[in-house]
Amino acid sequence: MSRFLHEKYAPLEAYTPGEQPRDRAYIKLNTNESPYPPAPEVLDALGQQDLEDLRLYSDPEGKALKEKLAWYYGCQGENVFLSNGSDDILNFAFMAFGAQGAVFPSPSYSFYPVFAQLHGVPYRTVPLREDFTLDVEGLCHTGCLTVLANPNAPTGLAVGLEAIEGIVASNPDQVVLVDEAYIDFGGESAAELIHRYQNLLVVMTYSKSRSMAGARLGFALGDRELIADLEKLKFSTNPYNVNRLTLTLGAAAVDAAPYFVENAKRIMATRARTAAALQMLGFTFPDSKANFLFIRREGLPGALLYRKLKDRGVLIRHFSDPALADYNRVTIGTEEEMGVFLQEVRAILEEEGLYETG
Amino acid sequence: MSRFLHEKYAPLEAYTPGEQPRDRAYIKLNTNESPYPPAPEVLDALGQQDLEDLRLYSDPEGKALKEKLAWYYGCQGENVFLSNGSDDILNFAFMAFGAQGAVFPSPSYSFYPVFAQLHGVPYRTVPLREDFTLDVEGLCHTGCLTVLANPNAPTGLAVGLEAIEGIVASNPDQVVLVDEAYIDFGGESAAELIHRYQNLLVVMTYSKSRSMAGARLGFALGDRELIADLEKLKFSTNPYNVNRLTLTLGAAAVDAAPYFVENAKRIMATRARTAAALQMLGFTFPDSKANFLFIRREGLPGALLYRKLKDRGVLIRHFSDPALADYNRVTIGTEEEMGVFLQEVRAILEEEGLYETG
Repeated sequence: MSRFLHEKYAPLEAYTPGEQPRDRAYIKLNTNESPYPPAPEVLDALGQQDLEDLRLYSDPEGKALKEKLAWYYGCQGENVFLSNGSDDILNFAFMAFGAQGAVFPSPSYSFYPVFAQLHGVPYRTVPLREDFTLDVEGLCHTGCLTVLANPNAPTGLAVGLEAIEGIVASNPDQVVLVDEAYIDFGGESAAELIHRYQNLLVVMTYSKSRSMAGARLGFALGDRELIADLEKLKFSTNPYNVNRLTLTLGAAAVDAAPYFVENAKRIMATRARTAAALQMLGFTFPDSKANFLFIRREGLPGALLYRKLKDRGVLIRHFSDPALADYNRVTIGTEEEMGVFLQEVRAILEEEGLYETG
Repeated sequence: MSRFLHEKYAPLEAYTPGEQPRDRAYIKLNTNESPYPPAPEVLDALGQQDLEDLRLYSDPEGKALKEKLAWYYGCQGENVFLSNGSDDILNFAFMAFGAQGAVFPSPSYSFYPVFAQLHGVPYRTVPLREDFTLDVEGLCHTGCLTVLANPNAPTGLAVGLEAIEGIVASNPDQVVLVDEAYIDFGGESAAELIHRYQNLLVVMTYSKSRSMAGARLGFALGDRELIADLEKLKFSTNPYNVNRLTLTLGAAAVDAAPYFVENAKRIMATRARTAAALQMLGFTFPDSKANFLFIRREGLPGALLYRKLKDRGVLIRHFSDPALADYNRVTIGTEEEMGVFLQEVRAILEEEGLYETG
């Protein structure tokens, strides 16, 4: 850091995104992207005029897209907040609603503590149970901003709507943020609860089930006053934070909802087949409702599997957290990609004397 | 605001972007966009593969684009910071470098005080002189983050490199941020000074001279340590904050530099002709080096001209600041658009008994 940087940021440790090595072509199972391209309607959405119109600012209100999403989720445009990816929304939420501190499960999305540190929000974590299930009780009556990912990352485990509603109802004077980045792969969305709870903010993204990580589009659903708070912060930092092309592509993606639902089903089917094959190879993992598996194999250190797979051209995600040293998070790719992944895993197990072919 | 919002944001007044009314087609001279589309190289830059690859996150380092910009501005990739529009960079800079407060001229970009308030940075303003010229002395030895737009907005007046260097050299222990959003319309960039001053941050944008306001791309040039500070904040809020399509379009725009230089010349020529015509009609304005004119007409209140032009389908920018009540900021559009603008201005002057045709 330079000698000019505010000293309060000296201890801050930035988030580390999944690696994007360019030294060779990898089968990329490390950042939970979709293996499928966006819908044909999205691929065809941009015309010459859209590109010429890049000279103009985007609509800072994003009205057209808000109305589409409101229609899809059964609410009004005033219940929808748009932002430059869902991380952007999480960042605003920690700023806006962290006055009394924040609480979130651990392990969970490793960005939560970074947002808290960045904005000087004191936080504590509620450990997952031994089997990685959520300590729902521990997230009730917290007295501060309560953040949880459902399904959780990196475990993939989801909780039902009753559990979410219990947490929300127990914290009426604090915002409960449910991060539903992975909701479309088998979880149960809390979106419908926004009509009954003023303190519920549901955060979603186009990066996973909608195959648009590179377009940068996240949105939140909530009571109109919560949304207005987020708009106030957005209009105080970067009013035009969603670009024109993404606004257009994002609207086309709502029209193409059946395609994305079908894709999510394919990914869930591949997840089931991959899980069965991994089980045969002695791996254990929580019951994932997300587009990844959080895997562990007795006798095989997580870092070793990660490194050996990388050498063989398959990228998975290994975390620096020592508590997760035995584990790796594996994104569900195409059927073919998972076939290669499993083949390389078998070869590594064999090298390590943990498996015999034939 | 909701009862959940942190009370420190209660007094915050968000920035008000230029209006984007959709009730009819306007000649839009209110947000300093370019009247010309991006270069043909930009319009042709996106292929089917780029759209399919939207399923993948963008490169959080933006390496390819950084290297292009570094080549163009004569520095290294490590001297370049990329962000989701230049407002995003200003926001980070107030966070990062405002520990001892901030100072900026007034009137200037009305977003500066919003950033300061948002991040709890105490600030003071250095008034422009009566003729709107910059009080260069007043920006020297400030003892805190020093921000200035060159050319300034909404006046359009620029200062030379000597003045900038004087300010930078006088504040060696504080960051001096030069906001060069409008530099390509006749100003003198301070980019070359980054090699000699560790405390200089030059902020630029694709929104004006590069005709890409809707793509959201800003960049900053500075010492590698200053850039590293900004990267730290970016990786603690939104690492993938520039989307894939914009990274590709942004690189194509560097290749198309001659087109954009030519466009800036056209806009400067139209500015000169518009200025001459306005002078004939009794308007006065500072000598603009930007893509707008800051105009005033004795006997014609600024709000009246704004409103009457809007009724006639021409949007210009009027500011709520009472000190600017006599003025309007008029973006330089195409030759044809400025012809219509002048015709409507003449008609309004006639209505008001301030001008006689024939």
